[in-house]
Amino acid sequence: MSSESRYDCIVVGAGLSGLIAARNLHRQGRSVMVLEARDRVGGRMRGKFLASGQWIDLGGQWVGPTQTRFLALLDEYRLSRFTSPVSGQKVLLYNGARYEFDGLFQGYAEGEIPGVCPEDWQDAQDAWRRFEALSAALPEGYPRANDLNRQLDGMTFAQWIAENTQTEFGKWYFHYMSRAVGVGCVEAGQISFLHALWGHRVASQAEHPEAELIRGGAGQIPGKIAAELAPFIRVGEAVTGVRHSDQGVEVLTGSETYSARFVVIAMPPHLAGRIFYDPPLPPLRAQLTQRVPMGTCAKVLISYDRPFWRDKGLAGIGLGNCRWIELCADSSDPETGVGVIATFVYGDAYHEWMTLPEADRRTAVLGDLAMYFGDEALTPVSYDVENWTADPWTGGGYTAFMPPGVWTTFGEAHTAPVGPIHWAGTEYSDRWPGFFDGAIRTGERAAAEILTRLAAG
Amino acid sequence: MSSESRYDCIVVGAGLSGLIAARNLHRQGRSVMVLEARDRVGGRMRGKFLASGQWIDLGGQWVGPTQTRFLALLDEYRLSRFTSPVSGQKVLLYNGARYEFDGLFQGYAEGEIPGVCPEDWQDAQDAWRRFEALSAALPEGYPRANDLNRQLDGMTFAQWIAENTQTEFGKWYFHYMSRAVGVGCVEAGQISFLHALWGHRVASQAEHPEAELIRGGAGQIPGKIAAELAPFIRVGEAVTGVRHSDQGVEVLTGSETYSARFVVIAMPPHLAGRIFYDPPLPPLRAQLTQRVPMGTCAKVLISYDRPFWRDKGLAGIGLGNCRWIELCADSSDPETGVGVIATFVYGDAYHEWMTLPEADRRTAVLGDLAMYFGDEALTPVSYDVENWTADPWTGGGYTAFMPPGVWTTFGEAHTAPVGPIHWAGTEYSDRWPGFFDGAIRTGERAAAEILTRLAAG
Repeated sequence: MSSESRYDCIVVGAGLSGLIAARNLHRQGRSVMVLEARDRVGGRMRGKFLASGQWIDLGGQWVGPTQTRFLALLDEYRLSRFTSPVSGQKVLLYNGARYEFDGLFQGYAEGEIPGVCPEDWQDAQDAWRRFEALSAALPEGYPRANDLNRQLDGMTFAQWIAENTQTEFGKWYFHYMSRAVGVGCVEAGQISFLHALWGHRVASQAEHPEAELIRGGAGQIPGKIAAELAPFIRVGEAVTGVRHSDQGVEVLTGSETYSARFVVIAMPPHLAGRIFYDPPLPPLRAQLTQRVPMGTCAKVLISYDRPFWRDKGLAGIGLGNCRWIELCADSSDPETGVGVIATFVYGDAYHEWMTLPEADRRTAVLGDLAMYFGDEALTPVSYDVENWTADPWTGGGYTAFMPPGVWTTFGEAHTAPVGPIHWAGTEYSDRWPGFFDGAIRTGERAAAEILTRLAAG
Repeated sequence: MSSESRYDCIVVGAGLSGLIAARNLHRQGRSVMVLEARDRVGGRMRGKFLASGQWIDLGGQWVGPTQTRFLALLDEYRLSRFTSPVSGQKVLLYNGARYEFDGLFQGYAEGEIPGVCPEDWQDAQDAWRRFEALSAALPEGYPRANDLNRQLDGMTFAQWIAENTQTEFGKWYFHYMSRAVGVGCVEAGQISFLHALWGHRVASQAEHPEAELIRGGAGQIPGKIAAELAPFIRVGEAVTGVRHSDQGVEVLTGSETYSARFVVIAMPPHLAGRIFYDPPLPPLRAQLTQRVPMGTCAKVLISYDRPFWRDKGLAGIGLGNCRWIELCADSSDPETGVGVIATFVYGDAYHEWMTLPEADRRTAVLGDLAMYFGDEALTPVSYDVENWTADPWTGGGYTAFMPPGVWTTFGEAHTAPVGPIHWAGTEYSDRWPGFFDGAIRTGERAAAEILTRLAAG
C-alpha cells in the first residue's frame, strides 16, 4: 500500500453513524475519508423544503427525553425543538368503526381508553402486561445466548400473540405494534419474539421517543456535520470490496482503491454483507449478514395549508386497522402554520400497495386519511413519498430486525470488529437501535475503538 | 450496447444450474457466455481424487430413484452408479449409550427400531405421523399464501417441536432432522415450520434420495458439461452489477462489461442479492434476497485403507447426539476397496467447532467417529474438509432455507423473472430443492423460458 494517500480510517457510508464516526476521528486529528454510494449524505436522515416553506423529514424526525446522545447533538448545533403536537382527540378506526379518545397506545398505552368493546381492550392490556414483564426481565445490553433467551428466540412474535391473546382486537393490537412501533416495521410472523421483547426493553415507547420535533427538521443535520468534513467526503462512490490484514485495509470502489489503517462499515448489516471481503469474513459474521433483513415501509408526508383537523378538536394522530394507513401523526410546525401529516405504509400492506399504479397509491393513502380526519384530507397541498424499501442503498425501513434464532446463535458476531474492520449503524446499537440516537452511539463507539487502537500504534 | 459482442444470454454462475442453462441454450444455437467468480466450475458439485486413487465428493454425492432429471443427466454422460453401501448394523449414539440396529431414521424411519426407551421412540413416531400428515396435505408446487400456510409460516419448526414432543429424545429426533436432512442444515429455531413441511413434501427421505452413488463421483460432471461450452466460460470473473432494460442487459465484472439480450443469475438467493441491479430490483424481490440465508455445515471426507467397520458387521452409517458428528455415512466404492466415510458438522455445533484450532477440529471429528465405529477411525489415510459455510461464493450448506414469514409474503417473487433477468439454482426448484436434481430443473427451466422469449423476438 502506498503510504502517501493512506488514511487513518475510511468510513463507508455517510449516514448519521458514519458521519459521527468520521467527525470524531477528524476532531482528534486523525485523517479520514468518507465514501458514500449515494449522491448525497445523510442516509435515513433526510429533509426537504416544500414550496410553502415548510420543512418535512422524509426519514426519521422525532426525538425523546432519554435520547441523550441525539439531544447532545441537537444542542451542539443549537437546533431548537418543539413539543410534538398531540393536543386534542386521537382517532382509532377499528373494523370500520371510528373512536375519538384522548389517549394513545403503541403497545404501551396511556391516557383515555378508546371506546372499543371492554373485553377487547382488557385482552390487549392483559397480554401487554405479560409482554412487558418478559421484556423488563431482560438485562441491559445485547440479548445473550442463555436457555430462556434461546426459547424466546426460537419462536416468532406472531406465535406468542396467537397464544396470549383471545380477541381479534388483542391480536391486531400486537400485530400493529410489530409493524408500526420501534424496531422493525415487520410483520410479527417474521420477527424473533426475543427481538420484539428486546426492542421494547432498549427503545421503549414509555420513554416517549416521539415527544419532540426539530425546528427545520432532522434532515438539516447531515449537512452541518458534513460541512466540517467536506474535503474528506466523496459521494457517488459505491464500495464493492475490502481487502484487509493486520496492517490495514484497501477499500475498492468501481474506479478507485483507498488505503487506510482501519475502516468503519457504517450501514445496515444486509448492505455490509454485499461487500466482498478479502479474506472472507469469519463464517459467524458472514452468515449473520445473510440473516438481518430490513423491515418494510414507505413514509408519506402530506401537507395542507393549515392543520384543519384542529378545528374539529382532533390531534392529527390516527391509528387503526385501515387497509393502508395504520398510523399517522401531526408533524406541523406551529411557526409556519402549515398542516403536515406524517404517515407510513407498512409490511404486507406496503407490498400490496406497490402493486397499484402510482396514482392509485396516492388515492389509497388519502382515502384512509379522510376516514381519520375528514374529507379535507383528500385535497392536500403537497404529497411526498419516500420509498425506503425500494431504495437499494437502504433496502427497507425503519430499520433491520432479527428473525428467530439469530441473536442466540450469531449475536456474538453482531458488533465485534474483524481485524481492522469496525461496524457502525443504528442496527448495531444496544440503546435506541433503529433511532437516530442509536446511530450516534455506534458512530461514537466505532471512533472511540479506532482512536484507542491508533493510540496503541 | 455494441451489437458485435452481444450474446443471446449471459449466465452468471457456473454451478450445475448455470451450466445446464448455458448448455441447453447453446444446443439450440443460441450464443451464451458463462461468468464464474471462482477459478473453477461446478459450484457445490465438486470432486477430488485421493492419493489412493479413490474419488471423493466434497459437495453433493448421492442420487435417488425419483430424481429423474439428475438420472437423465447421468445416463447422458454414461456415468454408472452403484447402490450406497448400507448392509450391516447402523449405529445410534444417544446420550452416551450406543445402539446397533438394522434400520434408519431421518424423520422418516424404516427397518428395525433402535433400542432406545420405547416411550422415547413412540413419542418421536407419534410426532412424526403428525408432521407427515401436515406435509402430505400441502399441494404440489411452491407454498402459497393461504390462511393455513400463513399460520404454519408464522411459526418456527422449533416451536412446533416444543408443542408436539414430550421426551428429550423426541425433541432431538426433530432438531437433528432439521440440521441433517433434506433442505437446510438449519437449527429448528431459525426455519419456518411451513418450509420444513414443504421440504419433506417435495424432497422426501421416503423417496430414498441417497440410494445410489456415482462411480467416479458427482464431481466429474461439471467438467463434462463445461467441455461442451469451453470457449464460452470465463472463470475468475465476479459479477458486481447488472444494468437492465426491456432491450437487454449489461453485466459488469471488475474489469469488463458484457452485453446480452437476457441474463440468468444462477446462484443462491443471498448471492444474487449481492449484485447491484440498475434499475433496482422490485422491492418484493430485493427484500426476499435479504431473507433467504444459507444453512450451516461443513462436509468432512475421511478415508481408510479399507472399510474396517464391515469386519464388525457395521454398515458405516452412524447417527446420534454426539457433540460434533450427528450423521456419517459409508461412501466407499466397492471397485477401489478404499473405505470412505462422509460426514458433516452442522448448525450451532459448526460455529462452535470453528472456534477450535484446526488440529483440534480434526481430533474432535475423529473422536466422535471412533465412538460410532471403533478406534480404527482415529487413524485415517486422508482427511478432507470442504468448509462450504466459510466459502464466500456459497456461504453455507447444503442449501438455503426460508425463515418464518418469507414464503407467504415474498414467495411470489422467488422465481419470477425481472425484465430480462431470470433466476436459477437448486434453491429455486419446487422439486428436490437443495439437491442436484433441483439445480438441473431450474437450469432447464431458465433456458426454456429464455428460448421462448428469444423465439418471440
